[in-house]
Amino acid sequence: MTDLTFYTNPQSRGQIIRWMLEEVGVPYETEILTYGGSMTAEPYKSINPMMKVPAIRHRGTVVTEVAAICAYLADAFPEAGLAPALTDRADYYRFLFFASGPLEMTFSLKAIQYDPPADKQAMFGHGSEARTFAALETMLTGRDYACGDRFTAADLYVASQLGFMMTFGMIEGTPLLKAYVARCTDREAYRRAKQIDTEAAEAMKTDAS
Amino acid sequence: MTDLTFYTNPQSRGQIIRWMLEEVGVPYETEILTYGGSMTAEPYKSINPMMKVPAIRHRGTVVTEVAAICAYLADAFPEAGLAPALTDRADYYRFLFFASGPLEMTFSLKAIQYDPPADKQAMFGHGSEARTFAALETMLTGRDYACGDRFTAADLYVASQLGFMMTFGMIEGTPLLKAYVARCTDREAYRRAKQIDTEAAEAMKTDAS
Repeated sequence: MTDLTFYTNPQSRGQIIRWMLEEVGVPYETEILTYGGSMTAEPYKSINPMMKVPAIRHRGTVVTEVAAICAYLADAFPEAGLAPALTDRADYYRFLFFASGPLEMTFSLKAIQYDPPADKQAMFGHGSEARTFAALETMLTGRDYACGDRFTAADLYVASQLGFMMTFGMIEGTPLLKAYVARCTDREAYRRAKQIDTEAAEAMKTDAS
Repeated sequence: MTDLTFYTNPQSRGQIIRWMLEEVGVPYETEILTYGGSMTAEPYKSINPMMKVPAIRHRGTVVTEVAAICAYLADAFPEAGLAPALTDRADYYRFLFFASGPLEMTFSLKAIQYDPPADKQAMFGHGSEARTFAALETMLTGRDYACGDRFTAADLYVASQLGFMMTFGMIEGTPLLKAYVARCTDREAYRRAKQIDTEAAEAMKTDAS
């Protein structure tokens, strides 16, 4: 028994938290939820009323929302060095919330092939896809990571989202963004997480067949 | 001269940061940007390449994204007591990112009257409007504030968004959500902020006429 439980599906955004947990390096238990099955029923519905994965439970407290879990784990396990000091969090929060807001919005709107025209861009926090990616390019120019020269949970989250979008062919990615994702994912914890989730996804296929 | 500059438009989401700054209670300078004018041109474009307000500059560092600015200011000015201790941030981050993600998504999609049907809800982080508000209702049941019995920057952000949506008639609001917004906004700093922005908006109308 550990005091940290991870609720996920290996093919969901839970992969981001798998990576985060492997970075943190503390023991945790995994509970796999199925779409349209255990994910939308009790007991999970009481853990996350959004009926979405991932979620974690740490020392009896539940955290939901991918970016919130990243930020929470970075603070709860400071020895992993994934969050800057409290007095130095301008870039850290800026990137975390840029990714949970504008970038996530772009990602979701791709599902319905909608990109706000000029007269609707004031109503959308991200403005438009072009504006979001131009801003991200500018924000990352001249720096290796969100917070400068050091990898943090903000990079883990931003690079994961960009990586998904590139893998699924939703964006092509500029040379700068591709190099950023390659730099962020060139880590042992990332490779470990990827392997665990790949194996878990395979096991689910075997179970289902 | 102060070391804190606030870039806003009194009719934008910048009202949330105005409230936050009034809660923090330190001196700041305000620069008003106009839609389709100074907001989309230099020098502001270099401050926020998204060409959106609000933004702040504190000791030479820029922060953009409303939720990021709330989180940043709460940490940068701990004497205001608007953020929990680092070891106790599960609810704090959960609500902040719930509002920057799912709630903001609901808000934006209202602009195009789109609500994801069942077969698209897996692609949207918020699922659907009904799911988002049902989850929020559950998350707030039995507590006065996001973090329990104490007002934090997470409440300031969540209540601001809910308040906008209710004021603009975008949601009706349940008794629980209405009581939550009323509780959160019953503060001197909120009233001060509201008055400053109302006067600033009036002054802009006079200038334009």
